[in-house]
Amino acid sequence: MAKEKKLVEAITSMEEDFAQWYTDVVIKAGLIAYSNIKGFMVIKPAGYALWEAIQKHLDARFKATGVENVYMPLLIPESLLQKEKDHVEGFAPEVAWVTHGGTEPLQERLCVRPTSETLFCDFYKDDVHSYRDLPRLYNQWCSVVRWEKETRPFLRSREFLWQEGHTIHATAEEAEERTKLMLQVYADLCREDLAIPTIKGQKTEKEKFAGAEHTYTIEALMHDGRALQSGTSHNFGDGFARAFGMQFTDKDNSLKYVSQTSWGLSTRIIGALIMVHGDNSGLVLPPRIAPTQVMIVPIRQDAEGVLDKAKELQKQLAAQEIRTGLDDTDKSPGWKFAEQEMRGIPLRLELGPKDLAQGQAVLVRRDTREKEIVPFEELAERIPALLETIQADMYRRAEEHLNSHTYEAHTYDEFKETIEKKPGFIRAMWCGDQACEDKIKEETTATSRCMPFDQEPISDVCICCGRPAKHLVYWGKSY
Amino acid sequence: MAKEKKLVEAITSMEEDFAQWYTDVVIKAGLIAYSNIKGFMVIKPAGYALWEAIQKHLDARFKATGVENVYMPLLIPESLLQKEKDHVEGFAPEVAWVTHGGTEPLQERLCVRPTSETLFCDFYKDDVHSYRDLPRLYNQWCSVVRWEKETRPFLRSREFLWQEGHTIHATAEEAEERTKLMLQVYADLCREDLAIPTIKGQKTEKEKFAGAEHTYTIEALMHDGRALQSGTSHNFGDGFARAFGMQFTDKDNSLKYVSQTSWGLSTRIIGALIMVHGDNSGLVLPPRIAPTQVMIVPIRQDAEGVLDKAKELQKQLAAQEIRTGLDDTDKSPGWKFAEQEMRGIPLRLELGPKDLAQGQAVLVRRDTREKEIVPFEELAERIPALLETIQADMYRRAEEHLNSHTYEAHTYDEFKETIEKKPGFIRAMWCGDQACEDKIKEETTATSRCMPFDQEPISDVCICCGRPAKHLVYWGKSY
Repeated sequence: MAKEKKLVEAITSMEEDFAQWYTDVVIKAGLIAYSNIKGFMVIKPAGYALWEAIQKHLDARFKATGVENVYMPLLIPESLLQKEKDHVEGFAPEVAWVTHGGTEPLQERLCVRPTSETLFCDFYKDDVHSYRDLPRLYNQWCSVVRWEKETRPFLRSREFLWQEGHTIHATAEEAEERTKLMLQVYADLCREDLAIPTIKGQKTEKEKFAGAEHTYTIEALMHDGRALQSGTSHNFGDGFARAFGMQFTDKDNSLKYVSQTSWGLSTRIIGALIMVHGDNSGLVLPPRIAPTQVMIVPIRQDAEGVLDKAKELQKQLAAQEIRTGLDDTDKSPGWKFAEQEMRGIPLRLELGPKDLAQGQAVLVRRDTREKEIVPFEELAERIPALLETIQADMYRRAEEHLNSHTYEAHTYDEFKETIEKKPGFIRAMWCGDQACEDKIKEETTATSRCMPFDQEPISDVCICCGRPAKHLVYWGKSY
Repeated sequence: MAKEKKLVEAITSMEEDFAQWYTDVVIKAGLIAYSNIKGFMVIKPAGYALWEAIQKHLDARFKATGVENVYMPLLIPESLLQKEKDHVEGFAPEVAWVTHGGTEPLQERLCVRPTSETLFCDFYKDDVHSYRDLPRLYNQWCSVVRWEKETRPFLRSREFLWQEGHTIHATAEEAEERTKLMLQVYADLCREDLAIPTIKGQKTEKEKFAGAEHTYTIEALMHDGRALQSGTSHNFGDGFARAFGMQFTDKDNSLKYVSQTSWGLSTRIIGALIMVHGDNSGLVLPPRIAPTQVMIVPIRQDAEGVLDKAKELQKQLAAQEIRTGLDDTDKSPGWKFAEQEMRGIPLRLELGPKDLAQGQAVLVRRDTREKEIVPFEELAERIPALLETIQADMYRRAEEHLNSHTYEAHTYDEFKETIEKKPGFIRAMWCGDQACEDKIKEETTATSRCMPFDQEPISDVCICCGRPAKHLVYWGKSY
């Protein structure tokens, strides 16, 4: 038992030190290893399998809305990056520059893409001529590089994996519809597949994407009460179109600029999965995206018939398209339990000689640790139902956590006291002036997370300056 | 009709200028666009969909052999690249160097990965300690950069997409087995999914991968008689293991070096698909990987019931998991036919008012242009069968082409005459001395493609020097 305890004890408890708990889980669950370049990580099989599952669900959702995948170059010439003024100001300070190709210095330096708006614009401007060519709904799955100073696995790294969608449209209305639609796709992914509730809203001017007219966001709340921006969707209007000359001939034969959007979701979302659902035994994965949904652990697997029955059950469940593993290594059952809990496998199926004799197996939920004994002939029905229940329960608990950690403030004192003592979202009114936003950030370290779509004026005045309020804002400390 | 003719005429015929035909197809079929950096391309939806299909089939084949996916950093520190002498000599002259991160010069320059052996070694050396940790069977899907001088879409570009598998094993035998197994996986993908026959064999010392003990390859033959290296699998022995200190404690408690392999297949294979199956009307795609397998074209779609029936058929076929499109644009049927032929869609289903009245549709094969009339009620059975037939016929024709363009040479004169007059593979004996290989390349531009696994001594002496022969070699001009 000493060994098993060691594995579990090796994680710092989240109540003691949440940041250290996070790092411990990321490493012990085998999601990543640090590479020897700061801010670049090795995504190990357990981590990459999560990303593959997220990709699969999200890509299907994209394609259902007509999106097509493409691939743009990794490198961007400096002159191209500079074409849109706000964009280059936002990104130039944090890109990696390629200056040599082989043994030759380059005539113009190239940056490793931090995002690909400029490449899509450069492509679209030659590819689109007529209203018949519109809309273009392209997406790419790739890695991007941003030279961040502070880095943490998944949450902020110098290289990360993501998808970036870039669409162009004949009308501003259509672009706005697409911007909202893709935010909804992200919110659906979070709710239905990742069991993560989010607040949908609009970023303030200060927090919007460099070069965008406006940015929509989904914000999730982590277990420690800090917010995580989990996916963003930007409406560019015709800003880039004018800078790049993206024009088309409309039905009335007039030359018009296209309207444009972009939207992205990254491996950062794996950080959200960990910090929304994890506990002091490690990861807790929602069944819908868990690479392994059920792990069979034979107890006394040397006993006659146990391993054979375990294999038979594995086959039977796999045939039902339940992702089922079998741990028949020579580790002790206790060690296996601890390992699988660390990895967040939603359901454990225990099977020993006694169970075999009685024609039953023991099911243990990862999320609640509840056990139940199920006759073999009922497993085919019970397991899928239980996985559904776990998925729903995980969402419900995360939603309860979000709701119980969302506060309202009507005065600045109340705001400051809440931020200090009650980690979570604070709903408070704002005048719309960046000076107030800056002051709040400086004095409390809380930032405006979003102006929720669901606007409900909870008072008439700005929390900070007392002038008339324009927007309800979700504020919070964030990752 | 003028417009339709224009679309078709716009392709150079392959007999006239094969290189121009290739470029025309790549562009007109919408596979790529050139970017504004030499050697970097935009892979458009039709091109990327092909890569997605290839990825899906290949990834499933990998996973069936126990391979797991991971993701390694994009950038490699110069000192790491230099750790294995032969490897750095092979790659350093053609890498892109990152020298600045944000506004700061880097202390050590980083290259954009040209391949990731060094990163996997650096990771494995800390991650693996005991025989219990072995084998490790990791793969990643990513893009790599090699600063090539001459570039052509898919065939040779400065950035390309690929997968690179990197495995480590406890014994040399196991590593050798894996090296051969992965070559077989590539050959199976080509034969069963891409309808491309290949010659399996070993590269000569001159042609092997930088740092490998030996390299296995599959070589395909293009329509113009030139060879294309289509996938390679390398056995590194313990060369990198010694350079990087990748050791493990074996069952007998002794410290040993791991044995290592790597294997890769890239978007280059799309070039093979084009040049093995294409014709003067454009692409011809094997049904198993065609993103759209059947395209329904309504004839006089304004006539009563035609479009409704077309939509009904599309639904019916989609329910059978046949990837079915419906072209209900306002283009003329002739224009649609030409466009779909250019895109290589395996089967066209034509449906006009007359067909509707007679309860039938017309099926037209892309590969042979054969037409057949099929009653509605037989479509559900006929179409899948026909797709299977097309797949099999495409392989058979490619194999016939390979066989009829494979020659034997017993003297150097015969060799030179064949190379000049009969584009294809030449089977000829070789002494094993690199001087002969160099001489043949210099005088004929033909290179050794591989020493086939199926060794059949067709004479006793080297084609070039007349000394005793050691190996049968496939020679050819190559891409």
